[in-house]
Amino acid sequence: MINYNPKDWFVFIFRFTKSDTFLRLLPLLIGVGVYAGLVAYVELNYLAFSQNEHIRNVGLMHSVLGFVLSMLLVFRTNTAYDRWWEGRKIWGSLTNCSRNLALKLQACVPNPEDRLFFRQMISSYAFALKSHLRGNEDYQELDPVLDLSRKAHVPNQIAAAIFGRVNHLHQMGSLSAGQLLVLNDEIKVLTEVTGASERIKNTPIPFTYSVFIKKFIFFYVMTLPFGWSFSMGFYVIPVVMLILYAMASLELIAEEIENPFGTDDNDLPIDQICHNIQKHVGELLP
Amino acid sequence: MINYNPKDWFVFIFRFTKSDTFLRLLPLLIGVGVYAGLVAYVELNYLAFSQNEHIRNVGLMHSVLGFVLSMLLVFRTNTAYDRWWEGRKIWGSLTNCSRNLALKLQACVPNPEDRLFFRQMISSYAFALKSHLRGNEDYQELDPVLDLSRKAHVPNQIAAAIFGRVNHLHQMGSLSAGQLLVLNDEIKVLTEVTGASERIKNTPIPFTYSVFIKKFIFFYVMTLPFGWSFSMGFYVIPVVMLILYAMASLELIAEEIENPFGTDDNDLPIDQICHNIQKHVGELLP
Amino acid sequence: MINYNPKDWFVFIFRFTKSDTFLRLLPLLIGVGVYAGLVAYVELNYLAFSQNEHIRNVGLMHSVLGFVLSMLLVFRTNTAYDRWWEGRKIWGSLTNCSRNLALKLQACVPNPEDRLFFRQMISSYAFALKSHLRGNEDYQELDPVLDLSRKAHVPNQIAAAIFGRVNHLHQMGSLSAGQLLVLNDEIKVLTEVTGASERIKNTPIPFTYSVFIKKFIFFYVMTLPFGWSFSMGFYVIPVVMLILYAMASLELIAEEIENPFGTDDNDLPIDQICHNIQKHVGELLP
Amino acid sequence: MINYNPKDWFVFIFRFTKSDTFLRLLPLLIGVGVYAGLVAYVELNYLAFSQNEHIRNVGLMHSVLGFVLSMLLVFRTNTAYDRWWEGRKIWGSLTNCSRNLALKLQACVPNPEDRLFFRQMISSYAFALKSHLRGNEDYQELDPVLDLSRKAHVPNQIAAAIFGRVNHLHQMGSLSAGQLLVLNDEIKVLTEVTGASERIKNTPIPFTYSVFIKKFIFFYVMTLPFGWSFSMGFYVIPVVMLILYAMASLELIAEEIENPFGTDDNDLPIDQICHNIQKHVGELLP
Amino acid sequence: MINYNPKDWFVFIFRFTKSDTFLRLLPLLIGVGVYAGLVAYVELNYLAFSQNEHIRNVGLMHSVLGFVLSMLLVFRTNTAYDRWWEGRKIWGSLTNCSRNLALKLQACVPNPEDRLFFRQMISSYAFALKSHLRGNEDYQELDPVLDLSRKAHVPNQIAAAIFGRVNHLHQMGSLSAGQLLVLNDEIKVLTEVTGASERIKNTPIPFTYSVFIKKFIFFYVMTLPFGWSFSMGFYVIPVVMLILYAMASLELIAEEIENPFGTDDNDLPIDQICHNIQKHVGELLP
Repeated sequence: MINYNPKDWFVFIFRFTKSDTFLRLLPLLIGVGVYAGLVAYVELNYLAFSQNEHIRNVGLMHSVLGFVLSMLLVFRTNTAYDRWWEGRKIWGSLTNCSRNLALKLQACVPNPEDRLFFRQMISSYAFALKSHLRGNEDYQELDPVLDLSRKAHVPNQIAAAIFGRVNHLHQMGSLSAGQLLVLNDEIKVLTEVTGASERIKNTPIPFTYSVFIKKFIFFYVMTLPFGWSFSMGFYVIPVVMLILYAMASLELIAEEIENPFGTDDNDLPIDQICHNIQKHVGELLP
Repeated sequence: MINYNPKDWFVFIFRFTKSDTFLRLLPLLIGVGVYAGLVAYVELNYLAFSQNEHIRNVGLMHSVLGFVLSMLLVFRTNTAYDRWWEGRKIWGSLTNCSRNLALKLQACVPNPEDRLFFRQMISSYAFALKSHLRGNEDYQELDPVLDLSRKAHVPNQIAAAIFGRVNHLHQMGSLSAGQLLVLNDEIKVLTEVTGASERIKNTPIPFTYSVFIKKFIFFYVMTLPFGWSFSMGFYVIPVVMLILYAMASLELIAEEIENPFGTDDNDLPIDQICHNIQKHVGELLP
Repeated sequence: MINYNPKDWFVFIFRFTKSDTFLRLLPLLIGVGVYAGLVAYVELNYLAFSQNEHIRNVGLMHSVLGFVLSMLLVFRTNTAYDRWWEGRKIWGSLTNCSRNLALKLQACVPNPEDRLFFRQMISSYAFALKSHLRGNEDYQELDPVLDLSRKAHVPNQIAAAIFGRVNHLHQMGSLSAGQLLVLNDEIKVLTEVTGASERIKNTPIPFTYSVFIKKFIFFYVMTLPFGWSFSMGFYVIPVVMLILYAMASLELIAEEIENPFGTDDNDLPIDQICHNIQKHVGELLP
Repeated sequence: MINYNPKDWFVFIFRFTKSDTFLRLLPLLIGVGVYAGLVAYVELNYLAFSQNEHIRNVGLMHSVLGFVLSMLLVFRTNTAYDRWWEGRKIWGSLTNCSRNLALKLQACVPNPEDRLFFRQMISSYAFALKSHLRGNEDYQELDPVLDLSRKAHVPNQIAAAIFGRVNHLHQMGSLSAGQLLVLNDEIKVLTEVTGASERIKNTPIPFTYSVFIKKFIFFYVMTLPFGWSFSMGFYVIPVVMLILYAMASLELIAEEIENPFGTDDNDLPIDQICHNIQKHVGELLP
Repeated sequence: MINYNPKDWFVFIFRFTKSDTFLRLLPLLIGVGVYAGLVAYVELNYLAFSQNEHIRNVGLMHSVLGFVLSMLLVFRTNTAYDRWWEGRKIWGSLTNCSRNLALKLQACVPNPEDRLFFRQMISSYAFALKSHLRGNEDYQELDPVLDLSRKAHVPNQIAAAIFGRVNHLHQMGSLSAGQLLVLNDEIKVLTEVTGASERIKNTPIPFTYSVFIKKFIFFYVMTLPFGWSFSMGFYVIPVVMLILYAMASLELIAEEIENPFGTDDNDLPIDQICHNIQKHVGELLP
């Protein structure tokens, strides 16, 4: 994620970063600009005296459809943002339950060996989940001391180890029934965080919507020059480019935001969240 | 569900899959195109000198109504997507509670016979729910070893068997009160998942909305050529077809997405979720 | 509720059921059609040469206000649908907690007399709530065997009887503290379902919104013919009728959906839900 | 709150109640009508032959801004309605937890003196919260028998008294640990209801939005006659009045709905809810 | 936060406070006004007879894009408001759990020394969180008596101290298992409030949306005078300024509202909430 000050308007308007949709769309914009110029050239020079009046009014269609398309793009923006923000909430829950677990274990578990075990395991859970979500199979940030199989589902193994140790302490009589329940409230959140992150990662927006929005933008922009080149002449070239820029940008940003656990510029700062969890668990459970 | 890379724009725009709304709407589009051509022919040749000016302005109605109709279609899109996404969340909860149940039983229940019982039952719950939702009465993926009646509600029987065994272990003294509560937290989610899935499956959008949206699209498209054929001539034919394509596609996709537990291309990958649950429960509760 | 296949487009478009808004609005539509015809007749014949140009542009107002009105109608549609869907969720919770209660009591309570008591009471709760919500004071579907006063709040009495029996068993030592907590989780949902259903039933959308939307539709449609009859001639008659049909239908459907516990065609299938609960509780708690 | 039948269209359209926005806006509407008339008079008589063409097109701005303004008003309507409906949900929770508390205490607490104490306290909580939210400092509906200080936060005192008594019974051994937990689930909702009601009451929509929407409506309506009086002549007077009526009504209704705990016509029926709670608690905990 | 009476329309419209977007945008508005005047001057004097007709129709683009832009701005407004309101809900939870914790400790903990400890700690938690969120490192409002390190995460230390003391009392036998669970329900909310506040503070809207909206407003306003100066002459100057005012204001307000824990005029009244918590905890836990 890029940290930025949202109030620097001038920087925003004139700087084009690598992830800026303007640069990524540039080849497409130039292509469509050339296409619009050709359409305008043919219409203005060869059709000028014939069906002039009729084809000019095709633009009526674009105002009706522009409306549907705009609302569809905002629907797309909304769903993508909701996933991104839900992803952030999920990792916020992971922070909360890691902290709560650490501060409760600190109070309930006096034995230094157990405390070391929990301290390592809780921090490792966040790192393991991060590597799991990114398909980073070597889990290099995990302490090799931990006895974990890289083949099975790693976060599940850690959650099982944490609950197993807590349950063992309960059966030994070191933890009362009340303390077991208090700790279980937090441990079950670990698995829920994993399930919810996997859900967001593995379920993009339904295939037909994704196809339909792209086809719709394409047909819309490709038919624009026919209706507008009589009205606008060659001004239709920048106009069609600007409209394509606006609409395709919305779709592009939505695609990038939709899966927020990667390493793109707009993805969530989950590396930083992992290190925060490690730091705070270390403070709370020394 | 189709797995796809949302960034392949060119593939999306030019490939027409079987479930693509374009192909499904093709006969209707051709029919409406012919109709629009006839209306334009009659208007342009026989009415050209009479009420020309007046009928041309009927198009004003279409801009007012186009607005209402667009917003209604986006409302429809939203509600359908919300059901689809809620369905995904529900099956995500099933994944979470199956995993949590497995890892907790692994810690609390040492007896191998009990563990086998729970391992089979938890995996079977997901498969039983899938068959139940799809009206697949023979439940062929269930282990025939399990003592379940195919006539009564199968998922309920499995949930009852799981809780019954846990409660029995509690009454025998193998599980403490704390452990009973910890396990109950997960078992009650099983029934909630079933109830929520049945709710989505059995409750489509209210009948009158469904009727009204379809009637509205129909009236809208059928009256379009009257107002626009004076302005556009025979260009009205592709224009009406494109507008019908856009609007009817939204309604068609919404219908398909609305009940997400089937086997259509856009439905949720619940087969895969079932197999994942089986695999992870096997890993956690060996 | 009407069960229907949402994919039968042709049936939807050409069949007019009793609850169809088209038939219910027909007298109003004819009245407004006559009114629009009169306005057009007067304008075209008596004002044709005077202020022609000025009154024609009054239509500008209708495009600005058409926008506000459309968004208001979609807001109305959204809130009505949200209540309907929330009502469905609430009754889904009732199904879930009835099933969970039955399967847990089956495991915890061995005594046949107690089991009969709970079986009758849980099923009766759903029927009692249905009659309560419909103001059906004789509660004819309740087993007359049950000792319930028809004057006090019947669902509350049943919930109190269920909790009372569970608590009695706990005090007698038949149910452990853990089992009491497990059962209480479900019993408290019974009262929450009742409270939430009463809330939806007794709280329509704020009075001023309801008044304002109706006044707004009325003024909008009544002023339409003034601005448009110069442009459209007598075509203004079907145009105004179609616009009124679209807008008033949205308000009419919203009114019907908003209170979903009645017996209208679009209301929730709560009769069927009650019978399902009775059937499944019977299966689970034999 | 006004109880009404939402299907009486004719009554709604032609009756103007005291709280109707039409009457409240009447002076403003007349003022703006006079202003629009003056602008039109000056433009039509003194500017008619000079910059006619140019000023006429200022109306283009109003269609672009009309769009932003409409969406902003619907945003305003949505947030105000959400607060109103959240307020209703909160008081629904109070109903639920009062009933649940009464029916559980009825089962767990046999001593008549304790039961009288809880019956009085639970009913008083709702009345005390109502008076607290309305700034009604004398709390006249509270039983003067209760030992409460009018200076400190009264609902907090009642919640503390209820929990204190329950905890005392637990420490005396009359209530088991399970029963304490069952009762605590409901008691903590009391404080949450108070906190949530105070939040809605004390936090209006951010100041700048409130200012901005009002300034925007004002500038929009004040500049309308300049662009439209060439097109519409003196018809601009009713047109501007109607547009102001529509937009200012939405803002006015939102202001009234936003804080739903007062005694205005559209506020929530919290008096009636208090009496219902008193009645039902009396029935459940005799 | 500014306390205001939302019904003072005249004050709102004519008073310009320091935080009013009108004053903050004034330099930009003047600059854009001058630019629009130059464009209009060049177009009207030098291009008047050449491509007049064509460039005039460039305005068509602005109606299509105006639509997308308006919806994007409302999306922005919605997300910013949702964060602001979620921030308010989070601090409402802090109020609720502080009160609940105080009233429960008052009942469960008789020892005056423990009560003093909890009274100081609960109030300090709110102040510590406030300073933490504002980056106010000296935590000057905390009682220096408390043994807290300013270097580690201060709210976490307080939560750990509260849970540690409660757990210690449980292990000593002063608190039963039931009481431990009752108190834990509230203590875990403390950490959740901190995590949720940090999430809102540290996660602005994705960088690309923020950039894209600003670029879009800029391009839109900069190209407006080209299309409209033929239609409007020099009236284009105030028109472009008004449109920029409306659109940039929405973005500016959203930026300010988005992070609601600062000390700006529109931020949440968290100072006041802290003092309320301190006062009510003092009343409840004397």
